[in-house]
Amino acid sequence: MSILVVGTVAFDDIETPFGRAKMVIGGAGTYIAWSSSYLHPSINLVSIVGGDFPKEELAMMNDRGVDTTGIEIVEDKKSFFWAGKYHDNMNSRDTITTDLNVLADFDPVLPDSYKDDDILMLGNLTPEIQIKVMDQMTKRPKLIVLDTMNFWMDIALDSLKEAISRVDILTINDEEARQLSGEYSLVKAAAVINKMGPKFLIIKKGEHGALLFSEGKIFSAPALPIAQVMDPTGAGDSFAGGLCGYLASCETVDFEAVKTGIIHGSTMASFCVEEFSLGKIKTLNEDLIKERLNKFKEITSFNL
Amino acid sequence: MSILVVGTVAFDDIETPFGRAKMVIGGAGTYIAWSSSYLHPSINLVSIVGGDFPKEELAMMNDRGVDTTGIEIVEDKKSFFWAGKYHDNMNSRDTITTDLNVLADFDPVLPDSYKDDDILMLGNLTPEIQIKVMDQMTKRPKLIVLDTMNFWMDIALDSLKEAISRVDILTINDEEARQLSGEYSLVKAAAVINKMGPKFLIIKKGEHGALLFSEGKIFSAPALPIAQVMDPTGAGDSFAGGLCGYLASCETVDFEAVKTGIIHGSTMASFCVEEFSLGKIKTLNEDLIKERLNKFKEITSFNL
Repeated sequence: MSILVVGTVAFDDIETPFGRAKMVIGGAGTYIAWSSSYLHPSINLVSIVGGDFPKEELAMMNDRGVDTTGIEIVEDKKSFFWAGKYHDNMNSRDTITTDLNVLADFDPVLPDSYKDDDILMLGNLTPEIQIKVMDQMTKRPKLIVLDTMNFWMDIALDSLKEAISRVDILTINDEEARQLSGEYSLVKAAAVINKMGPKFLIIKKGEHGALLFSEGKIFSAPALPIAQVMDPTGAGDSFAGGLCGYLASCETVDFEAVKTGIIHGSTMASFCVEEFSLGKIKTLNEDLIKERLNKFKEITSFNL
Repeated sequence: MSILVVGTVAFDDIETPFGRAKMVIGGAGTYIAWSSSYLHPSINLVSIVGGDFPKEELAMMNDRGVDTTGIEIVEDKKSFFWAGKYHDNMNSRDTITTDLNVLADFDPVLPDSYKDDDILMLGNLTPEIQIKVMDQMTKRPKLIVLDTMNFWMDIALDSLKEAISRVDILTINDEEARQLSGEYSLVKAAAVINKMGPKFLIIKKGEHGALLFSEGKIFSAPALPIAQVMDPTGAGDSFAGGLCGYLASCETVDFEAVKTGIIHGSTMASFCVEEFSLGKIKTLNEDLIKERLNKFKEITSFNL
């Protein structure tokens, strides 16, 4: 009953109005695995790194129940590296450097023991890789979640549409939902995207929360207002980790379960942004998470 | 037990990606009065119009329990006129024309019967006028709500701060909260603004909902996702109308009451944007409002 996570494990160089973090640990797979590890005991992570990636980082993940035998280590090459600079509003950023390095050769081969995992979480990667992973599963997972971005809509729309047609939950942001659907209204965009395959569309809006659309039903989740957002990097991936980690414990993945999953995802994202890199995520525990989940209840409750 | 509303009653010329409405009824006072009239039986409206303003529009408001004897009619002059064009995203707009006309001479003199009203709703006007109105009240209202905008922060900050220091609820948008406080984080901005006087700060975020900050407590209200937003004009004023209309019925204006008031405000705003001008607002009834209030409950409910 493991969660299979496929995503980058990498180095980041991040500049925000509040500071700079050089060559810190990053990557969608890393954030997803760490976040989900607080909600589910068994995570399988598929990725690729260079010989420069610290072995102790993998060991730390192992200690948290993350199996990293699915991470290919290419000793004579470098890990994927991304450098970005956030604008004052923290909602937009410029990419300064993208060095694919080992990621250019990423052609994931799933260990046999991963092929019947219950939950498949496809982090943001080329749609071709996401499809290849789905093709290797020996049974259809109970749940497939796919994260993607506008870049793939620009250069690989057909493959992306094929990938999307095979998943249960798609997570994108509001601009991406508009681009993918050709509709400005998110209600209309969701109707178009739900028809492309995913029963559940989650629209991530950063500091404005998230929206869930499924079969005409809507759920609006807030983001927790944070006194000091230090670094938004990995927030969306932490969200995905919280979502999958929660859903792994559910008998049935229905609208109610996905709603609660979103609150778990938002909770993990709210921790993520409070420090650079995985600084905060690495220090969590069950009590801190429960306390914050209750905050989401608190800030949304009202009487009519 | 009336709500005293002070605000513009005017003509608008509106262009959105979905159409154009020429010389339609607008004005903050109009939207506030109409919206609150569905939640409270007695509204007193103070404003100024020219001889060109249709008497039947005033009569329609009278039919809804809005006393318009506080509206000065300057027969030989024209009403305030605003023309604006919304961008594709509907979140931003350009002002094409602002003809102050009678508004240039607006120096409100409250009818004696208005001076002990329970709720004072100060629509977006020069802070000097907002202060003059407060000065005329013979007893301190149970609740004073003030709406304003960045324009007054730019050109009349001292008067604005004086006005703000005397009110209970301030409603502004997120950029304005940042400008007024000098803090980017809304949590920090709220702490600064709460210290300026208002016990309650409501930050309006349009399609992203609203946030309430008061004494360290936070409430996050969603906006209702709307399939087709036709015209955002007046949404903030309809919000204020719903808020005051609800609070007028409350014994005590505490955090819980303001939360419920915000949901009533968001409900009225969600109707407002569905048609140009007051097209939708004029056609409401108790059942439609109840149904929509329940939608807000529905889209925010989740189990932990």
